Amino acid sequence: MNRRWKSKKSAWVAFIYMVGSKTRKTEVNAMITQEKINGILEGYGKDLKIATLCSHTALQIFYGARQEKIKTIGICTKERMKLYESFPLAKPDEFIVVDDPKEIPADELVARNAVLVPHGSLVEYFGKKLENLAVPILGNRNSLLWERDREKMFEWMKNAGLQIPKTFKPEEIDRPCMVKFSGARGGRGYIIVNSQEELDSRVPDQTGITIQEYLIGIRVYPHYFYSPLSRHGYRAGEGKVELMSMDRRVESNIDEAYRLWAVGLTSKPAFTIVGNEPFVIRESLLTGVMEMGKGVVESADRLFGGIPGPFCIEMICDENLQLSAFEISARIVAGTNLYPGSSPYSVYTHGPGMSTGRRIATELKQAAKEKKLAKIVF
Amino acid sequence: MNRRWKSKKSAWVAFIYMVGSKTRKTEVNAMITQEKINGILEGYGKDLKIATLCSHTALQIFYGARQEKIKTIGICTKERMKLYESFPLAKPDEFIVVDDPKEIPADELVARNAVLVPHGSLVEYFGKKLENLAVPILGNRNSLLWERDREKMFEWMKNAGLQIPKTFKPEEIDRPCMVKFSGARGGRGYIIVNSQEELDSRVPDQTGITIQEYLIGIRVYPHYFYSPLSRHGYRAGEGKVELMSMDRRVESNIDEAYRLWAVGLTSKPAFTIVGNEPFVIRESLLTGVMEMGKGVVESADRLFGGIPGPFCIEMICDENLQLSAFEISARIVAGTNLYPGSSPYSVYTHGPGMSTGRRIATELKQAAKEKKLAKIVF
Amino acid sequence: MNRRWKSKKSAWVAFIYMVGSKTRKTEVNAMITQEKINGILEGYGKDLKIATLCSHTALQIFYGARQEKIKTIGICTKERMKLYESFPLAKPDEFIVVDDPKEIPADELVARNAVLVPHGSLVEYFGKKLENLAVPILGNRNSLLWERDREKMFEWMKNAGLQIPKTFKPEEIDRPCMVKFSGARGGRGYIIVNSQEELDSRVPDQTGITIQEYLIGIRVYPHYFYSPLSRHGYRAGEGKVELMSMDRRVESNIDEAYRLWAVGLTSKPAFTIVGNEPFVIRESLLTGVMEMGKGVVESADRLFGGIPGPFCIEMICDENLQLSAFEISARIVAGTNLYPGSSPYSVYTHGPGMSTGRRIATELKQAAKEKKLAKIVF
Repeated sequence: MNRRWKSKKSAWVAFIYMVGSKTRKTEVNAMITQEKINGILEGYGKDLKIATLCSHTALQIFYGARQEKIKTIGICTKERMKLYESFPLAKPDEFIVVDDPKEIPADELVARNAVLVPHGSLVEYFGKKLENLAVPILGNRNSLLWERDREKMFEWMKNAGLQIPKTFKPEEIDRPCMVKFSGARGGRGYIIVNSQEELDSRVPDQTGITIQEYLIGIRVYPHYFYSPLSRHGYRAGEGKVELMSMDRRVESNIDEAYRLWAVGLTSKPAFTIVGNEPFVIRESLLTGVMEMGKGVVESADRLFGGIPGPFCIEMICDENLQLSAFEISARIVAGTNLYPGSSPYSVYTHGPGMSTGRRIATELKQAAKEKKLAKIVF
Repeated sequence: MNRRWKSKKSAWVAFIYMVGSKTRKTEVNAMITQEKINGILEGYGKDLKIATLCSHTALQIFYGARQEKIKTIGICTKERMKLYESFPLAKPDEFIVVDDPKEIPADELVARNAVLVPHGSLVEYFGKKLENLAVPILGNRNSLLWERDREKMFEWMKNAGLQIPKTFKPEEIDRPCMVKFSGARGGRGYIIVNSQEELDSRVPDQTGITIQEYLIGIRVYPHYFYSPLSRHGYRAGEGKVELMSMDRRVESNIDEAYRLWAVGLTSKPAFTIVGNEPFVIRESLLTGVMEMGKGVVESADRLFGGIPGPFCIEMICDENLQLSAFEISARIVAGTNLYPGSSPYSVYTHGPGMSTGRRIATELKQAAKEKKLAKIVF
Repeated sequence: MNRRWKSKKSAWVAFIYMVGSKTRKTEVNAMITQEKINGILEGYGKDLKIATLCSHTALQIFYGARQEKIKTIGICTKERMKLYESFPLAKPDEFIVVDDPKEIPADELVARNAVLVPHGSLVEYFGKKLENLAVPILGNRNSLLWERDREKMFEWMKNAGLQIPKTFKPEEIDRPCMVKFSGARGGRGYIIVNSQEELDSRVPDQTGITIQEYLIGIRVYPHYFYSPLSRHGYRAGEGKVELMSMDRRVESNIDEAYRLWAVGLTSKPAFTIVGNEPFVIRESLLTGVMEMGKGVVESADRLFGGIPGPFCIEMICDENLQLSAFEISARIVAGTNLYPGSSPYSVYTHGPGMSTGRRIATELKQAAKEKKLAKIVF
């Protein structure tokens, strides 16, 4: 709290006012510039806080930040506050209560030196608003655009050299295909069709859908963390990619469908993610897993300026041990919630006690110390 | 070991003799009074021990007690002693060897200042004898009655505001239904019937059965701990309910039935629980999970004087993320055995190292210290 | 580095040269003698290192050794080095780079005081060469022979008193049977046949196959560690067997086959192991699990001189809670990779932080200190 800090703070409060007013416009399409975000970050100094929406992976993010002694801010609806208050070691230091989880309290966040950590629910609720939001976001906000737009994602996966499922136009469907809708919706509403007729009858509005070959094998979800700053990990671009952990998603009702059949019941398959279970992959496949992570990192560098922070490649391992990707999540995924303490992979880099939530905090701390926040926040 | 303790001890030995003789009667229906249990507890002073039957979750309970420096007593048949002796950090400090696991050595337990921790096997073996057993039991022994009697359990679940499966009388069966038999039998013998005819032919003796609609979704088993003493957790009644951990049960042969079908085999579905696997639920469902826990706690307060200690609500999450309960376990469940070290949820309240077994020990310690044992032991 | 050590070293270097040259012959059938291995071990003194092939469970083995401050050597192909270099706490202290993972650099290993830790990939790649390899191997190399030869394994399982599946000659097949091929191949290529005709048409070369009844139930894989030195654990032979952890294997595509069916797809079942998920078994089954481990240990004593170190009994638990074994792995299994930190079972013997990889290191340390290496290394 010395004078230098004070003056910076004032300068920045003025600055924010201006930016903040911008975000109140209903339609803004241009993305905010890195310069503006850097300006905000300069105002923060070293004393930054971690903010996120109270959902998805927020407990892990808050707990990890607390382990690193970084203050936290929970953007929270009133009805959820009781939950987040009830975990003494994972509750945010401060709440910003919102009526609608789709409203981002940009001004309040910047006034508190907050870096926003995006997760699946936050991306789903805030949507395109994140593009020109005048709040520093952990990672590269461009990646969220590439994640949301299925055509861009396919371009990204191809550019990364990943083996991916065949995609079809409606008129090309000649085998069972998965139909996905735009946005992260936790798997809700995915359907399988066998023909264009079935597609037309079941999906009247085909805007933004993706039609993918249904891949046969075991689903595997490795959780990566890309750091342009770290000295440890799997070389990728100018930094390192780390394997934090791994899970398999559990979807209702498909993942207990066999129990129904066994007792003479049937039901339409549904793919709503309800949770996660731990998993480790055959060690001989790890080189492939890491090369895929490296491919995604370096492709992100080429296509839109990089993907610092956590991400996930959703993949299938077939019976010949071939790994195919069917999606990228350009942010922390919920499977990491299995490992707020330790994981069977992060111990090999950090020893016990390193979660993805905590890794975010250590990365921010290091970047702040080395004055490299602009490398990992935009 | 001061004089006050000594005199109390003597008074209580005499008292016990009387009660102990009572338990030898074949038919005793009246429940022992809280006053009598309190009398026994007063005799204990602060120097109490934790006792349980060597089965189910005993290793975790002993290990947790040892972490809190509370001495333990294992009620054990001869054939199981070798197992429990083989774990240096989870073996009880002392064994009471019994010929028949259905015999409770009440006198010996009280003579050792024991608080009995009930678990699934203990409840199954001791059955109605627990009602008037002159040994302090962790939790409220009334809850074990409500757990065992399926009509009472349904009343409890309804009173708690839980969404529950439709129940049927035999003549009402119009869809696949699960038939459950009374008592905790680890899932053994559950069957599915589609009609009254099928029920009559497969279940000649229908005493005590429950007929429930078969719910479609993913089974989820959150492990709760309700403390009337704690300052941390989710407000419920006059205390707090904590989320300790979560699992999914693995049942033989139903949970690998699909493997049979794939190779051209069929078999009658069976639901014998053989073990557990870890699970975390979508964070956005946690408020619902905790509200259900709160409902069960407050309903227990209203109906039979509360449910201090560990419990579980067996639930199904459907494709629309609706949570329905199909059972309550009014004591520690075996799924907690996955987490004798840490769990992805207990870290948020206690940091690393807190199991349900250890949580029992910390609660007893706190209650003894604050002279509130009567609040959590009956 | 005193003189005594030096002179021993020289003697042993000469000795090794001789043995080393032997391994270069194309056909060597005789097994190396325990005396020769003891001679090598004497040369090592206390200063031994742990070596293994960079695959399977190598990260866990290196990490565990590092926790015990034992230096490690990774036998590694060039293409895998990047992976093993990328984990700062699990990378070997030194690499021996090989062009072909089937080549064992025996001389270099002995020159570095290495004890070789065998795992599934190492056993698969090195095969019969392990028999007369002039490098000390953790455990008893005889056990690897018994593991590889399916007839011997059945003799072993029977001698151990395990309940095992019925085996068939081709002409006896009268029900769905699993056909297994010799060697550890990670489950790849296992098939199910219903008749001799099907067998003949699908398996033209029937050399070394085993035909087993397909068991119905849940697969369970307990990970044991047998120590002739330890004071803690389940008494077996002259030592103790410990339960380290447990898993269930995940196989592609069989373990997601039901997902295919639900969406109208079919596929030939395949059983390629792609990874592992955690599991704990009903505590009442643990005595059975430990007795099976004891049976395997004592039978190994009788048949071929014992099985010190890690092993696994692959088993099925049926709906009546009967445990049947269908295989023994006479070395560390990949399911232990779930627990490089702690496991829900090893905590009861060692407290937090004991993996099978680390347990290997502690055993070697103790044996070296007590001059009992010959008891656990051959």
